Amino acid sequence: MGSKSDYETMKKCINTLEEFGARYEVVISSAHRSPARTKEYIKNAEQKGACVFIAAAGMAAHLAGAVAANTIKPVIGLPLSGSKLSGIDALYSTVQMPSGMPVATVAIDGSVNAAYLAIQILALSDEELGKKLQKDRLKKAQKVEEDSASIEKLL
Amino acid sequence: MGSKSDYETMKKCINTLEEFGARYEVVISSAHRSPARTKEYIKNAEQKGACVFIAAAGMAAHLAGAVAANTIKPVIGLPLSGSKLSGIDALYSTVQMPSGMPVATVAIDGSVNAAYLAIQILALSDEELGKKLQKDRLKKAQKVEEDSASIEKLL
Amino acid sequence: MGSKSDYETMKKCINTLEEFGARYEVVISSAHRSPARTKEYIKNAEQKGACVFIAAAGMAAHLAGAVAANTIKPVIGLPLSGSKLSGIDALYSTVQMPSGMPVATVAIDGSVNAAYLAIQILALSDEELGKKLQKDRLKKAQKVEEDSASIEKLL
Amino acid sequence: MGSKSDYETMKKCINTLEEFGARYEVVISSAHRSPARTKEYIKNAEQKGACVFIAAAGMAAHLAGAVAANTIKPVIGLPLSGSKLSGIDALYSTVQMPSGMPVATVAIDGSVNAAYLAIQILALSDEELGKKLQKDRLKKAQKVEEDSASIEKLL
Amino acid sequence: MGSKSDYETMKKCINTLEEFGARYEVVISSAHRSPARTKEYIKNAEQKGACVFIAAAGMAAHLAGAVAANTIKPVIGLPLSGSKLSGIDALYSTVQMPSGMPVATVAIDGSVNAAYLAIQILALSDEELGKKLQKDRLKKAQKVEEDSASIEKLL
Amino acid sequence: MGSKSDYETMKKCINTLEEFGARYEVVISSAHRSPARTKEYIKNAEQKGACVFIAAAGMAAHLAGAVAANTIKPVIGLPLSGSKLSGIDALYSTVQMPSGMPVATVAIDGSVNAAYLAIQILALSDEELGKKLQKDRLKKAQKVEEDSASIEKLL
Amino acid sequence: MGSKSDYETMKKCINTLEEFGARYEVVISSAHRSPARTKEYIKNAEQKGACVFIAAAGMAAHLAGAVAANTIKPVIGLPLSGSKLSGIDALYSTVQMPSGMPVATVAIDGSVNAAYLAIQILALSDEELGKKLQKDRLKKAQKVEEDSASIEKLL
Amino acid sequence: MGSKSDYETMKKCINTLEEFGARYEVVISSAHRSPARTKEYIKNAEQKGACVFIAAAGMAAHLAGAVAANTIKPVIGLPLSGSKLSGIDALYSTVQMPSGMPVATVAIDGSVNAAYLAIQILALSDEELGKKLQKDRLKKAQKVEEDSASIEKLL
Repeated sequence: MGSKSDYETMKKCINTLEEFGARYEVVISSAHRSPARTKEYIKNAEQKGACVFIAAAGMAAHLAGAVAANTIKPVIGLPLSGSKLSGIDALYSTVQMPSGMPVATVAIDGSVNAAYLAIQILALSDEELGKKLQKDRLKKAQKVEEDSASIEKLL
Repeated sequence: MGSKSDYETMKKCINTLEEFGARYEVVISSAHRSPARTKEYIKNAEQKGACVFIAAAGMAAHLAGAVAANTIKPVIGLPLSGSKLSGIDALYSTVQMPSGMPVATVAIDGSVNAAYLAIQILALSDEELGKKLQKDRLKKAQKVEEDSASIEKLL
Repeated sequence: MGSKSDYETMKKCINTLEEFGARYEVVISSAHRSPARTKEYIKNAEQKGACVFIAAAGMAAHLAGAVAANTIKPVIGLPLSGSKLSGIDALYSTVQMPSGMPVATVAIDGSVNAAYLAIQILALSDEELGKKLQKDRLKKAQKVEEDSASIEKLL
Repeated sequence: MGSKSDYETMKKCINTLEEFGARYEVVISSAHRSPARTKEYIKNAEQKGACVFIAAAGMAAHLAGAVAANTIKPVIGLPLSGSKLSGIDALYSTVQMPSGMPVATVAIDGSVNAAYLAIQILALSDEELGKKLQKDRLKKAQKVEEDSASIEKLL
Repeated sequence: MGSKSDYETMKKCINTLEEFGARYEVVISSAHRSPARTKEYIKNAEQKGACVFIAAAGMAAHLAGAVAANTIKPVIGLPLSGSKLSGIDALYSTVQMPSGMPVATVAIDGSVNAAYLAIQILALSDEELGKKLQKDRLKKAQKVEEDSASIEKLL
Repeated sequence: MGSKSDYETMKKCINTLEEFGARYEVVISSAHRSPARTKEYIKNAEQKGACVFIAAAGMAAHLAGAVAANTIKPVIGLPLSGSKLSGIDALYSTVQMPSGMPVATVAIDGSVNAAYLAIQILALSDEELGKKLQKDRLKKAQKVEEDSASIEKLL
Repeated sequence: MGSKSDYETMKKCINTLEEFGARYEVVISSAHRSPARTKEYIKNAEQKGACVFIAAAGMAAHLAGAVAANTIKPVIGLPLSGSKLSGIDALYSTVQMPSGMPVATVAIDGSVNAAYLAIQILALSDEELGKKLQKDRLKKAQKVEEDSASIEKLL
Repeated sequence: MGSKSDYETMKKCINTLEEFGARYEVVISSAHRSPARTKEYIKNAEQKGACVFIAAAGMAAHLAGAVAANTIKPVIGLPLSGSKLSGIDALYSTVQMPSGMPVATVAIDGSVNAAYLAIQILALSDEELGKKLQKDRLKKAQKVEEDSASIEKLL
């Protein structure tokens, strides 16, 4: 993530990774304030076997792009809303990447979905994780039914 | 893709997949006009071993979401610009997915990047593809130098 | 409605339907988390004689479109504002439907109007309901006069 | 429609109504330039048995609202794009109606969908029309398959 | 104004008219809920000598346009912000009028400026009012100097 | 107007003023490139009896505001579309004026309406002009009827 | 700054200038309410040796442009968010300047960056200031590391 | 500039620098495709005495930010319009920089102004350049008068 103030939103991302038992690291590094550190971290993380990067940033959210420029692994971009433009600035800065440099962008403040997308990618080569995703889907569908039951009015 | 009119834009996606030698299928299916077919195609594709889906659609671009609802594989959403809103409608409809149902969104009309993102994901378990991506990066950096040389004015 | 959190906004829709004595059912079903349930509910509802569907959802609001894909009855789409984009995402996702698949869209969070539109449609074949709508119009015009009287300053 | 210049876009609406054999009238009347005529036309049309109104207008598109203010029949609003704001002005002016005065809004320049929505409403009390809609759905799904076949590349 | 809820914002408009001693009336009338009343009020007001109309409304703010359709006097449109779209809907609905039907639009919630614009128009044939405006300008310029003095830091 | 390139759009404004026989002057002056000239012109124009100013400008359209800062006469602001932002920049720069400094804003490129608004203001003290406006309204309503007749399809 | 209400936001700008020991003056002057004062202040400031101007304003933020029209020194524009449009109006009014009249625009409410940009410009001819900027960069990079350390979770 | 396709727009920037006799270099370097080259170029340019950087890029325009991250010299950001979002994406990506990392942003495609701003900064320590800017201002004001004379209609 680009700044300490992003931590509150990122907690939900971390919790989701925890729930699925995915291995992850959490660091702060800024595209602008610590470009060298960002580059170095990516290199180290790849050596430790990192498969997917999640980059969360607000405003002129260059972090995901800066990560993408330094790796060929999939980079998930999470635009954050902490500005007067409600995250539209971060969304455009994250998603509108030039050809050959994609960032897999999720919703503004979509912290949970950044984790899910990472897990879906990891699950391609981790059958256990795939089964957890399947179960999670069933649970979500059941939750809809339960929620509905609690408010349903049928004729 | 959601409609035949999207084919022109998708050609660049297909060409990129070809260049990298990635295996792919191309079909038209609509979230609204052929929901059953969409669901069925996903099931068949998964049985044939599909790892990643790319869904391209314009306007109220529900296709990527409709695919995501029927698979736990990563779904790449490509918002297309064929409306009066220049693709902002398709971008929002594609990226603003609810928790637990991510769509990996790329730029409006970012047909090439949809392919690159798919290749990056496939490369996680395909070393050959990873090497091609590395070479491609070098080639892109060289291209920048060549382009620059052709217009440079240095003191 | 797409999620339990939409219930607060939908109450005003339900209350309006109650006031006019329209017959209705209330269920939660999600375009993404429970696509099968959504499809099945529509089928059952139609067998019970449902004439109009109201689909309320926020963010990448695909619910109305998903309902429209499974029925030829009129579908009223109610975009909800529960995101950083103030419901513009939901509005575009709901209204910008492709040719042949209309969604009758009302204002962002326009819960009351979703009900009124449904009642107007039902009133086409229910004279009693039509009379209630006529009376309601007169009441609304009178209310304007009373409100005005309470603040008027005339020379 | 609000002006003669809207006719080009409205032709597709008229053609769709023709295809389904729906009864309709076409007139130009303006919310601003001919308010009395607008009101009078609605009254006459209702006496002739009009069930649904389609109002198409661009810019500060008040026509649908002006119609809605003078009838309790469902009013379909079609925002047109003939301004520098690409129809966003017309969309907001059409869809953001106050409580109790809904306008069933379709996509910007969604001329065909305005017709479809009207037909769906009429079909509620016209079995024949309902059957045509059902057939049309099948045809649309088949068209998707044919379009797909013409470009498919399967492994 | 279009609704009683607009009164809070309109107070500042009324206060400004009072300060300048301009003659005015305050009424509520809705373009949609009381179209007949709106038309009739304009007629009566003109007979009493009304020179300028101020129409304040939110959302699909048709009131100013509805007034403009029924008078050739200048109509000042005041877009209000009471919706999820922060008044952008009301701004577009008020300012984007078709040729020949202008609405003199002021800022979103620019209640004070609606009054000032009316006073500027009235001052064209009321020398006294013109002098008050001149004094007001001087006072405003002085206020800037005083405000500045209270925070100035000069080297 | 702020620049010679605005002349094409302004011609329609000038033609409308001509049609109504309103007295007017046309000059180019820029808020930024010739601020002194702008101020001086306003002073001279007022001495010659100018009652209303029309200021047309694009992009960061400060001209109307710069005129308003130097006169207490009504200033009509005409935002022009000659930028990548389609005139939204000019609209916001023109309409969002601070308290006490109104600009009577018309539609983007609403050149004709700028003239109409000026004429409406002038007509308050020019009975002849008022009668022309009344006739114009009737003509416009008739034009609607004629246009309608040319395309009408009645049952 | 354009108004006393901007002071709260500007404090952070002032504090930053203080931290770096840059020489500055703080005044309020309005493009619209005190145009003469604005012009005069610029002249005086230049005579005292002012090198850079920072102009902060909200809504139709003409202040930076008005300053730029009266000096050839670099003008930094700071768009403020105190309106219903969240500062988008101020951003467009500040940045979209016509050719030959640039305003160096920073982020909405980017009060600190306005100061930094001024300091960067001043540092071009003030070695001491340049060194402070260099140190500040190192400190910022260190701060990122410390922030990261406080939340890091490494495998 | 970030890509060869930006050259067409940048020509006007280069021409302006030429007209004023400012010393400059032109290179292509990409924040994403050649991050190392970008960093290295900045270092070399600074050693050759570069005082100001102009970074032009479209879409998720990270180039200006990437330059700013590697220098304490003023960085001018020029957002380009070559995307479906008309340069709004590039504008937000360029201007919404985090605290301490300003980018002096000019208008979308404001190629000429990027040059002017650079010249204004250089003129702070180059009297000759300052005089040229003064003359240019007079010429621009004269041009306004000449343009006006060619279309003026005075009573």
